Amino acid sequence: MAGGEFALIEQLRSRLGKAGKGVRLGIGDDAAWLDPAGRQLVATMDTLVGDRHFFPDVRPYDLAWKALAVNLSDLAAMGAEARWCLLSLALPLRAAGYGAWMEDFMAGWSALAERYGVTLAGGDTVSTDGPLTLSITALGLVDQCVMRRDTARPGDMVWVTGSLGDAAAALDLALVERGQEGQSFPCSVAQQEALEARRLRPTPRLEFGEAAAACGVCCAMDCSDGFLADLSHILEASGVHARIALDALPLSRELMDLAGEDPERWQRWPLTGGDDYELILCAPAALSAALQRVAAALSLRLTAVGSIQSPNPNGQVAVTLTWRDQSLSLPSSWGHVHAL
Amino acid sequence: MAGGEFALIEQLRSRLGKAGKGVRLGIGDDAAWLDPAGRQLVATMDTLVGDRHFFPDVRPYDLAWKALAVNLSDLAAMGAEARWCLLSLALPLRAAGYGAWMEDFMAGWSALAERYGVTLAGGDTVSTDGPLTLSITALGLVDQCVMRRDTARPGDMVWVTGSLGDAAAALDLALVERGQEGQSFPCSVAQQEALEARRLRPTPRLEFGEAAAACGVCCAMDCSDGFLADLSHILEASGVHARIALDALPLSRELMDLAGEDPERWQRWPLTGGDDYELILCAPAALSAALQRVAAALSLRLTAVGSIQSPNPNGQVAVTLTWRDQSLSLPSSWGHVHAL
Repeated sequence: MAGGEFALIEQLRSRLGKAGKGVRLGIGDDAAWLDPAGRQLVATMDTLVGDRHFFPDVRPYDLAWKALAVNLSDLAAMGAEARWCLLSLALPLRAAGYGAWMEDFMAGWSALAERYGVTLAGGDTVSTDGPLTLSITALGLVDQCVMRRDTARPGDMVWVTGSLGDAAAALDLALVERGQEGQSFPCSVAQQEALEARRLRPTPRLEFGEAAAACGVCCAMDCSDGFLADLSHILEASGVHARIALDALPLSRELMDLAGEDPERWQRWPLTGGDDYELILCAPAALSAALQRVAAALSLRLTAVGSIQSPNPNGQVAVTLTWRDQSLSLPSSWGHVHAL
Repeated sequence: MAGGEFALIEQLRSRLGKAGKGVRLGIGDDAAWLDPAGRQLVATMDTLVGDRHFFPDVRPYDLAWKALAVNLSDLAAMGAEARWCLLSLALPLRAAGYGAWMEDFMAGWSALAERYGVTLAGGDTVSTDGPLTLSITALGLVDQCVMRRDTARPGDMVWVTGSLGDAAAALDLALVERGQEGQSFPCSVAQQEALEARRLRPTPRLEFGEAAAACGVCCAMDCSDGFLADLSHILEASGVHARIALDALPLSRELMDLAGEDPERWQRWPLTGGDDYELILCAPAALSAALQRVAAALSLRLTAVGSIQSPNPNGQVAVTLTWRDQSLSLPSSWGHVHAL
């Protein structure tokens, strides 16, 4: 990046790296110096590649939001309080420079970061001959326990926050618009805008994750690769089985209107579509009232969608899917692969 | 990465993510759960892009070593104990897969990581249509203070660890070999091998950095962009001036033979060449004996190369360079830009 690198870093520092909680030394030295204040650390890292994880024509504001949200969602799934981020930007060489692009990118980043008190504490900016590539490391703090994947127990209920499938439906529309392979369906402008907002600017469930862990929930995961695929990670790690009512999955009003009574659409969007960034929780029914109170206080929907059961006698870990109380075969594809 | 992503992650987990100090939950959940044990955290992130920061024909072993070393060197410059890493690998799609490549990559990584007790605690693997791109986040711990850039004071001595310029001379040879722009010079096979080993497998000065901070050194930086460029960051941040004896810069035996008495070669390689990953320290002369004892115990060379002075009366921060006690003009280029 030659001299431009230092200008870019200074821009990021002054806009996104302002003094934050526990930041003893931020951007501008060999490394950041951070104070966990005696707490435990939670760390995650995700990378987004242009033309794979996002369309090349994405608005920088939305790209920054989503890249940060994806990482914060991982912290939420652990029950952590989000604190600090490191950002690596590999920028394609362009004659025109990145002035306006960076302004919009930083606006999107700070809109989300400020909501959760997350400080940019370091990172790197480099040039690339390839597509724009972002890597983010998010660091959070927990006091005692984290929520993990391998602690689901038979008898637990399965909950999911918010609603599922909006982003997947929006992706279908976005692909069709760009002449790529997606499912086309009639949809009003207002419906499409609502779905697209969920695809572009997911909400990491940080407050709820932290509160759920405080309630005693030990098992959670964020739903990013599709509900069924992510639930199956919990089941495998915990060595258990699950029974899920497809028709109980929470849908937004817009998606409910579009999916109607068609189980295939329910399978395509909320069950196996991706990029929801909601939380899946498994916990004893005794926690239900407390969790619902927490969710209500946050104006967040929390839906019971099934239960954890002992594995089959042959030890096989699997999901039993129902639709209107009738068994349903599992779809052949269990989830998406973060394509765009 | 489709299904291959999970196989790759499992490979990295089983080989590089074994239980480590303070790792309460490593690779395999939404995020890593790490225990700083009441200490302060130091965090850094560096990205290497194929064909920019390394030759496309680099051996995966060397690439892994260097990518990790570059990050650990930043921790060393802060005086931190290295603990955990997160690795993001953006791999170009290849028909042949990454089996042998990954084996060699992991061998190089673990050779360095095991030396310093660094555990791979998380990360991400994705595909890219662009060049191979690695981002690494390194996390370390300190007890009280870190060494920083803005704490050099007039009267301080300036020291540098190890030797400077080997990597820059090796890069010249590597560029000429590849038909690119570099300085050609006669050199024996043994000399070239010694230089190339320093270019490919730098040694992060972690033990020395930690011990120097414990001795009371408050100001240090790692030397990665060229001694003069990096020293100038210290001077700017601290608002001071420095007097540096070019002929005092520490050179390896091989580079000494090649540079001889030619101040231009001294300027090109040890003064402004990059990729040394040595430490520059500024501290009162009273610490000299203690620092030399620490260095001797580590069989590490530690060389006094100049002193920190008050800024000019006009407030200008600058470097006075001498050669055999005579003033020398500063070179027009102050450092390299991490090209290859």
